[in-house]
Amino acid sequence: MTTYNLALIGFGGVNRALAELIRDEPGRFASLGFELRVVAITDLAFGSLVQGDGIDLASVLAMPRGSSFEGLPGGSPDPRNEDVIRNSPADVVVEATFTSPIDGEPAVSHVKWAIESGKHVVTTNKGPVALRGQELSTLAAENGVRFEYEGAVMSGTPVIRLAQKMLGGLELNAVQGILNGTSNYVLGRMEAGLGLDEAISEAQDLGFAEADPTADIGGSDVRLKVAILANELLDANIRPSDVETTGIQDITSDDVAQALAGGLRWKLIGEVRREDDGSIAATVQPVALPAGHPLAGISGATNAVSFTTDLLGAVTVSGPGAGRVETAYALISDIIAVDEFVQGAVRA
Amino acid sequence: MTTYNLALIGFGGVNRALAELIRDEPGRFASLGFELRVVAITDLAFGSLVQGDGIDLASVLAMPRGSSFEGLPGGSPDPRNEDVIRNSPADVVVEATFTSPIDGEPAVSHVKWAIESGKHVVTTNKGPVALRGQELSTLAAENGVRFEYEGAVMSGTPVIRLAQKMLGGLELNAVQGILNGTSNYVLGRMEAGLGLDEAISEAQDLGFAEADPTADIGGSDVRLKVAILANELLDANIRPSDVETTGIQDITSDDVAQALAGGLRWKLIGEVRREDDGSIAATVQPVALPAGHPLAGISGATNAVSFTTDLLGAVTVSGPGAGRVETAYALISDIIAVDEFVQGAVRA
Repeated sequence: MTTYNLALIGFGGVNRALAELIRDEPGRFASLGFELRVVAITDLAFGSLVQGDGIDLASVLAMPRGSSFEGLPGGSPDPRNEDVIRNSPADVVVEATFTSPIDGEPAVSHVKWAIESGKHVVTTNKGPVALRGQELSTLAAENGVRFEYEGAVMSGTPVIRLAQKMLGGLELNAVQGILNGTSNYVLGRMEAGLGLDEAISEAQDLGFAEADPTADIGGSDVRLKVAILANELLDANIRPSDVETTGIQDITSDDVAQALAGGLRWKLIGEVRREDDGSIAATVQPVALPAGHPLAGISGATNAVSFTTDLLGAVTVSGPGAGRVETAYALISDIIAVDEFVQGAVRA
Repeated sequence: MTTYNLALIGFGGVNRALAELIRDEPGRFASLGFELRVVAITDLAFGSLVQGDGIDLASVLAMPRGSSFEGLPGGSPDPRNEDVIRNSPADVVVEATFTSPIDGEPAVSHVKWAIESGKHVVTTNKGPVALRGQELSTLAAENGVRFEYEGAVMSGTPVIRLAQKMLGGLELNAVQGILNGTSNYVLGRMEAGLGLDEAISEAQDLGFAEADPTADIGGSDVRLKVAILANELLDANIRPSDVETTGIQDITSDDVAQALAGGLRWKLIGEVRREDDGSIAATVQPVALPAGHPLAGISGATNAVSFTTDLLGAVTVSGPGAGRVETAYALISDIIAVDEFVQGAVRA
């Protein structure tokens, strides 16, 4: 069985969830035909740890926040990201740090260092994909490694790979999505009679919404995902700033009630469309959808993407768009894609 | 570029739609890396036609119903299915005859003859898959050919392949679906105030429902699809007759109105579930779904399948479940799978 050595960059919720799965369920990976071994971890808080024969995940997962890898064999109080990414004996770099919506850093550099040193990269980080996706994909191809990022759009729910692998031979004319669970939850609660602020507070209490909900409510989170979908699936070459973006902050309880009475449901829709002249239009805006629209029935914090195709019409996939385990699964699906690439190269 | 020679078995709506795409859009296939050439057609009405250097599709598509292939070079007034399937120079047999829900014939024999003579088979026919799927898949593996049947469940909307390729590494605990467009349309119209018979008549007028709507309304169409999902995706070994089946014939307008008032929507649900003891429960029955259920919002004649997984929870795909072009696309997706197999074998 093939063993892939992983370097986990960032040791927050998502990479911890992946580490827990590797610790607890080797059989899950064995059934896929490979074994995963974590040989390096870096984190702003913990520092870095490199152990070529495999880190004892039970021990590091038990370390309380506030402690440090310093003092462990191969440990350092500093993250040493560049050194670890370039020089650790990892085959696959698992990038799950935070997203900067401005320049995608430090994730963009992490991805580059990995690719330049001949390592595959899997990431759940929207930033590098939305802002520098094509450049990084080209760099990966030049270096003979994979750059996979299924989790950047809808956590583990397949979207990018589904469109690429399951809709082959179809012309894709538009992609519409409910790509932010918080705003969808808030709109649903407004349909139940809550005001916008009240609904946001409730979402915060339930842990859906950030303390600062601006990116969710104002549409900038969806904007990054729309840029990814436009570039990956409709061969556009756009930046997030090219996506005309309006959030749900000005939707009132009256708007919602009036729409409902007319059989319509307000949703925050991210959309990419190929116009008749071949140009690409990309928007984020609240839309009052009729009941028969494939996205009208998507409720709660669920996310969904609807693909408009020439032969099939609308094909829609819905599922979770967040969550630490759900997002860790995106990394697993990316590692499966890396494995297919590696096995294909071995056969060839 | 690879050329695949096709034998079209049955020249009704679906295979005619495929032939039209091959005639009109060679670029669609070229972009997939192959060319399709039809070298044989058989049909109960037209007879059979074998032309090894490629049939002129424009001519045969222009032939009116009631005419015959007799008199054309390589033509015969008889379908000669066995001879054509075994001896024509086809690489891929495209089986799109009618489904017998009792024994799957004549499609089962068509598939066997093709596999035994070393040809790949793609089909949109529920019968052979629901009744003899595992036996035929084993036979195909033994003969080094592919047996592909994505269209047997939801026409071109990816379901079987999506579960197998996009949900790798997940434990699939249940599959629930809205797998019959007619009954879903009828239930929706009953929500709008029509009676059952009235809604069925409307569906017939619109061309959704057959003259005899028993298989749609009584659940036996869904039963075949549930058997396929159970065997393919949950490794069950069941026959359609093992699926406990109740249709929507006894759902009244009162039932529908009462449910709606309570926020529930009646849907005809096909379901396969792995019970705690490992056994498989398979049912078809009307269920009043709460608004938040992933299948509650599936409206009109749309079909959908919701996969219950361990790490992602529910992932749902919806799209068309019928239509000649939509079903022809299923055949294209199957031919893509054949091509991947062939190219993989070439590399190895």
